[in-house]
Amino acid sequence: MSSNPLNIGMIGYGFMGKAHSNAYAKVNHFFPQLKFRPVLKALCARNEERARTFAETWGYESVETDWRRLVERSDIDAIDICSPNNTHHAMALEAARNGKMILCEKPLARNVAEGVEMVKAVEEAGVPNTVWYNYRRIPAVTLAKQLIDEGRLGRIFHYRAVFLQDWTISPELPQGGEGLWRLDLDAAGSGVTGDLLAHCIDTAIWLNGGFESVSAMTETFIKERVHNLTGEVEQVGIDDACAFLARFRNGSLATFESTRYARGHKALYTFEINGEHASIKWDLHDLHRLEYFDHGDDSTVRGWRSIHVTDGDHPYMDHWWVPGLQIGYEHSFVHQVADFLTGLEKGEAVSPTFAEALETQKICEAVLESARSGQWVQL
Amino acid sequence: MSSNPLNIGMIGYGFMGKAHSNAYAKVNHFFPQLKFRPVLKALCARNEERARTFAETWGYESVETDWRRLVERSDIDAIDICSPNNTHHAMALEAARNGKMILCEKPLARNVAEGVEMVKAVEEAGVPNTVWYNYRRIPAVTLAKQLIDEGRLGRIFHYRAVFLQDWTISPELPQGGEGLWRLDLDAAGSGVTGDLLAHCIDTAIWLNGGFESVSAMTETFIKERVHNLTGEVEQVGIDDACAFLARFRNGSLATFESTRYARGHKALYTFEINGEHASIKWDLHDLHRLEYFDHGDDSTVRGWRSIHVTDGDHPYMDHWWVPGLQIGYEHSFVHQVADFLTGLEKGEAVSPTFAEALETQKICEAVLESARSGQWVQL
Amino acid sequence: MSSNPLNIGMIGYGFMGKAHSNAYAKVNHFFPQLKFRPVLKALCARNEERARTFAETWGYESVETDWRRLVERSDIDAIDICSPNNTHHAMALEAARNGKMILCEKPLARNVAEGVEMVKAVEEAGVPNTVWYNYRRIPAVTLAKQLIDEGRLGRIFHYRAVFLQDWTISPELPQGGEGLWRLDLDAAGSGVTGDLLAHCIDTAIWLNGGFESVSAMTETFIKERVHNLTGEVEQVGIDDACAFLARFRNGSLATFESTRYARGHKALYTFEINGEHASIKWDLHDLHRLEYFDHGDDSTVRGWRSIHVTDGDHPYMDHWWVPGLQIGYEHSFVHQVADFLTGLEKGEAVSPTFAEALETQKICEAVLESARSGQWVQL
Amino acid sequence: MSSNPLNIGMIGYGFMGKAHSNAYAKVNHFFPQLKFRPVLKALCARNEERARTFAETWGYESVETDWRRLVERSDIDAIDICSPNNTHHAMALEAARNGKMILCEKPLARNVAEGVEMVKAVEEAGVPNTVWYNYRRIPAVTLAKQLIDEGRLGRIFHYRAVFLQDWTISPELPQGGEGLWRLDLDAAGSGVTGDLLAHCIDTAIWLNGGFESVSAMTETFIKERVHNLTGEVEQVGIDDACAFLARFRNGSLATFESTRYARGHKALYTFEINGEHASIKWDLHDLHRLEYFDHGDDSTVRGWRSIHVTDGDHPYMDHWWVPGLQIGYEHSFVHQVADFLTGLEKGEAVSPTFAEALETQKICEAVLESARSGQWVQL
Repeated sequence: MSSNPLNIGMIGYGFMGKAHSNAYAKVNHFFPQLKFRPVLKALCARNEERARTFAETWGYESVETDWRRLVERSDIDAIDICSPNNTHHAMALEAARNGKMILCEKPLARNVAEGVEMVKAVEEAGVPNTVWYNYRRIPAVTLAKQLIDEGRLGRIFHYRAVFLQDWTISPELPQGGEGLWRLDLDAAGSGVTGDLLAHCIDTAIWLNGGFESVSAMTETFIKERVHNLTGEVEQVGIDDACAFLARFRNGSLATFESTRYARGHKALYTFEINGEHASIKWDLHDLHRLEYFDHGDDSTVRGWRSIHVTDGDHPYMDHWWVPGLQIGYEHSFVHQVADFLTGLEKGEAVSPTFAEALETQKICEAVLESARSGQWVQL
Repeated sequence: MSSNPLNIGMIGYGFMGKAHSNAYAKVNHFFPQLKFRPVLKALCARNEERARTFAETWGYESVETDWRRLVERSDIDAIDICSPNNTHHAMALEAARNGKMILCEKPLARNVAEGVEMVKAVEEAGVPNTVWYNYRRIPAVTLAKQLIDEGRLGRIFHYRAVFLQDWTISPELPQGGEGLWRLDLDAAGSGVTGDLLAHCIDTAIWLNGGFESVSAMTETFIKERVHNLTGEVEQVGIDDACAFLARFRNGSLATFESTRYARGHKALYTFEINGEHASIKWDLHDLHRLEYFDHGDDSTVRGWRSIHVTDGDHPYMDHWWVPGLQIGYEHSFVHQVADFLTGLEKGEAVSPTFAEALETQKICEAVLESARSGQWVQL
Repeated sequence: MSSNPLNIGMIGYGFMGKAHSNAYAKVNHFFPQLKFRPVLKALCARNEERARTFAETWGYESVETDWRRLVERSDIDAIDICSPNNTHHAMALEAARNGKMILCEKPLARNVAEGVEMVKAVEEAGVPNTVWYNYRRIPAVTLAKQLIDEGRLGRIFHYRAVFLQDWTISPELPQGGEGLWRLDLDAAGSGVTGDLLAHCIDTAIWLNGGFESVSAMTETFIKERVHNLTGEVEQVGIDDACAFLARFRNGSLATFESTRYARGHKALYTFEINGEHASIKWDLHDLHRLEYFDHGDDSTVRGWRSIHVTDGDHPYMDHWWVPGLQIGYEHSFVHQVADFLTGLEKGEAVSPTFAEALETQKICEAVLESARSGQWVQL
Repeated sequence: MSSNPLNIGMIGYGFMGKAHSNAYAKVNHFFPQLKFRPVLKALCARNEERARTFAETWGYESVETDWRRLVERSDIDAIDICSPNNTHHAMALEAARNGKMILCEKPLARNVAEGVEMVKAVEEAGVPNTVWYNYRRIPAVTLAKQLIDEGRLGRIFHYRAVFLQDWTISPELPQGGEGLWRLDLDAAGSGVTGDLLAHCIDTAIWLNGGFESVSAMTETFIKERVHNLTGEVEQVGIDDACAFLARFRNGSLATFESTRYARGHKALYTFEINGEHASIKWDLHDLHRLEYFDHGDDSTVRGWRSIHVTDGDHPYMDHWWVPGLQIGYEHSFVHQVADFLTGLEKGEAVSPTFAEALETQKICEAVLESARSGQWVQL
């Protein structure tokens, strides 16, 4: 068992609090060579009863109800921010000021202005930092990155990504409050753009480099919903759907789209990249597969290959089971923790850092600006 | 055998000339109740030797090398225009002037101006007319139309379509001349927009109603190619790729994309429609299937259904084989001829008429204009 | 147009009569280099009215109601037998005696005894002959054969095939008579074994060589059905389902299964072959695709390739459309006619001949014998 | 956190030791309502150094090198047997004698004789017992069971299952010893029959009821391999491949096949069940999906549904993430532990018990006997 404890102070106990806690609990079982070992030191949330229940379930040693107290505790090494987007900025600034490492849920912030200050804060404090764009570390996605880096695709012509869901189609669904803050503009900063397209953009920058310009449209299909915090019917401020065209610096063209009104899709994040020599496709609904087309194959037997990314020589997979046995969604978080801990060992930053996540934030903001103005926005 | 001959004068012997000739030759075998019977009266092309060979293969009774002579022949009832886009306008005007029915390959014309005159010509002449947007009559696509008309989808939120090919990636490929006129701006009028997106737009109008506005981008990846007609390296004028955002009058959002640089895709025309209650997907590469998701299914057994559109109660399929045995690309042309002949019997226009195809032309032109100006274009 | 007429006398106007007529009508359009040209000389069936209707639809020049007259006509070159299985034997013997070429629907006969005499008859008469095991000539299946012949698979370990349908599940379905003779033991000779497994066995012999031994089971799920010819409820004599184990002479193991009680499958003929170096899968429901796995691929990008068998260098496909545009079921018959006509040109037998089809008949009979005896049967 | 510790003594640290340890470590995080909590009390293996390393990684409190000592320890409640098949019998007998609960890896034993004694031992001792046929608890498989129990399929006609792998094709692979004992007849008891078909048989009994008779064939493709324990080339005693026909008591027919020579398949366990009204398919390579065909759907929109089994109302899934986010292989073990702990709470046996696993053993033995004798074996 790794000998160096890394004391974690977690803020939030929602869906992401569970995903991160699981990653901390599992990482040393499957990555036994790691020198650091996360210790679940404290769980922080305003609702003390729920916080205690969650802490007990996951084995957190203590509970805080005020995050400002948590970030000041001397027995905490790293703060993990899993609370709604409107809390990231203040928490990160205070955590950095107290010299804590920070692992922040995505998106980094509600907007670029917040994000800029957060990057400044961690860089001035010199603390290790990362943002949980976890999809990079799904083995099939990491494999896509490897194939691109090996030059197998050649010049890239096209990139396309969608993130489609269908959980907000009912007009009866309220907005705001626990579990539904993603529909509340103030809490979330935006709708699908910050929640879903941010993932697509992060992956795209990683795989395809920087954006040059975007042209977007957004729509709010259900204009009013009951707000859970006021009990009143209120205007919906978020974007229910967003689509945009983009040009990348490498000369490729791209389309991006996200919505929560695509009946039949729960979490259909897909991307496809078309290069001169080869193409790649991936789909979160079958996250353990990568589709690959290699024009170099003999012409009569050319076809899209469905790679079952479960072999020992696939990224991360030597840590899990045997060929053919798939892992799932949660493992991407384990991988991110493993890489973060390896970064600590080596004294190296682990991507995506706050600074890198700020790039994604800038694209999101440009997208929303373009949707408002009806103009292309240069980056 | 149907007793009323419909004498066809065909212009062109290329890929489309073959597809149409096959449709005329087969239609009465599989639709024996039809009252009209196409007769392959004359084949017209400038290269007399090739014209004769083609005419002999398909059983055309005579050959013409001047289309102006063909459209004046009193023994011809209908002119089928399969020659390059830059010939459609003049031929259609003359054919209409001579009182001929016209079956014109898509796109209707190179631009709206030509198209407007063509519509005027056929309407003034009062001749039956149609444009070969054949994909409407692939049974799975026709089934999609039925499901929408039955109200199964409810309010439509999203429409997305792509038409991806990869046959022009090599810079060694020349432009212009026989077989390659689609790369020559003057002959084709545009690149993928008129060639491929026109199909997507036609289907979309049919399934989802009128467009409201578009924002587009285009790209020409290979800037110069040898021109077959001059032997010189010349600038490439067409759009190699085009993507656009759209809003429909029914309030739905859409994305469209087409390219000839999507490695791994030969003719991947796909569309997907997301409605309040159900969604639909289709893919030309497996044209005999329709994917359908019905939110009304019991929640534990909800899933995308892969409908093998080969049953006797599927559109057109009672004319072919038995359940499970698929038809192919060419059958869409047979269906279009069958419907055209039925229209003649009933004295009804058969969609898409020139007037309807002009709507598609207008969207294509708006898309190209938006790509040039960088602005949204209202329709 | 090919100059040498080949005068066809067709017996039967059912589903297969239509498939064959279409093949004769189309073949010279798409294979213009052929030296022979089928001419639809005569259609023979007992019901004169229906025979006339069919003849008129397809352009047969004359009608006969007595096949014995047909096979004696001096203006007929080739007899095509599309009538029920219990007629094949007598017709083939008479046709051969009259020196006619014979194209016989599969299975060759109801049993080996009939088949042996039929082979003897055509061989003594020295007439060209073939049996319509058309699936060999679906391009993806022909490609499978090519890949095996090229040695890409190496030593074969496994072969598995199923042919699953679901059209006889209802106990209300009668047996016997037009359209339902396949359920009548006397007319058909057997149930799924001769009707469906015969296809699987023909393909398997072609791709994997000879059988060594089989162990089978059969079942008749619905024991009694109204018989259309008597109006009485009668015992059902055919096998509704049949599954068998097999060993091939090349040392590979195989499983075969067919049924008409597999809810959800219309005509799901699939086979898979596992070799030392590569494997192949095919599925009639998507007949234009071949799945191929090549262990020689780089290990990180190994996966099953889905080959869209529509390119010009795929078998037969240079005669049809362009890459990405699929053909269907009916084209396999066109290919068989094309190959038969080429065989006439070259004076070569075209596989599968009667003699080759007799091998399939022997396996079918061994399968049924094993099912009866509960013992392995050696071949 | 659950208050009642269940002290686990684990024997073995291989692949299964890891899978089970992970299940014990995670179960209370995701099933917080459970009253029992596994405690990793002791890890037992002959190689002390490796045992210590494994124990440290997973947090086992102590290490034993003699399993006889382990089963006598008073601080151990339950013995988990993860060592090779030839050890199950003796361990289970001793563990039962010492009043320990037993969780035994599958197959229960090497043969029926051993299994009978093991069942007798646990029943006489009255200790809770289970065998790790974990695939039952993959949510899609559990859903299949629910759908059958709800009567959605009606009368069952067909069952078919395969378990295909390709990891032993190379003749260079040795047999025996750590990691390769599955190729050693003495250690494993049989080849694919006990290792892979046992899974298929367990699922089949659960979903489709009891077997009536079987007819099998087996093959050993590579006849000799170096034995790791002797360093000598020795005859291979196991079955490399096995296929069998079966009849079930409910009148349905079945085919089963397993091999380690199916190039391209890593762990392709699939089953399909065809009922009168509906059919079901499942595939371990995409274990989070269930394919379902319902004949009751409107005829024009009937098709196989691909159910993404990740919703809150799918079996077990309310314990994990949100719709669309898949779990993996390891979760089936977590579910089995959760159910076992629930059984302890309720004082109920948890399926499959030793007695139930013995039924699977009997089928395996009948299959091997049939392969030897070439006769059908009644059950």
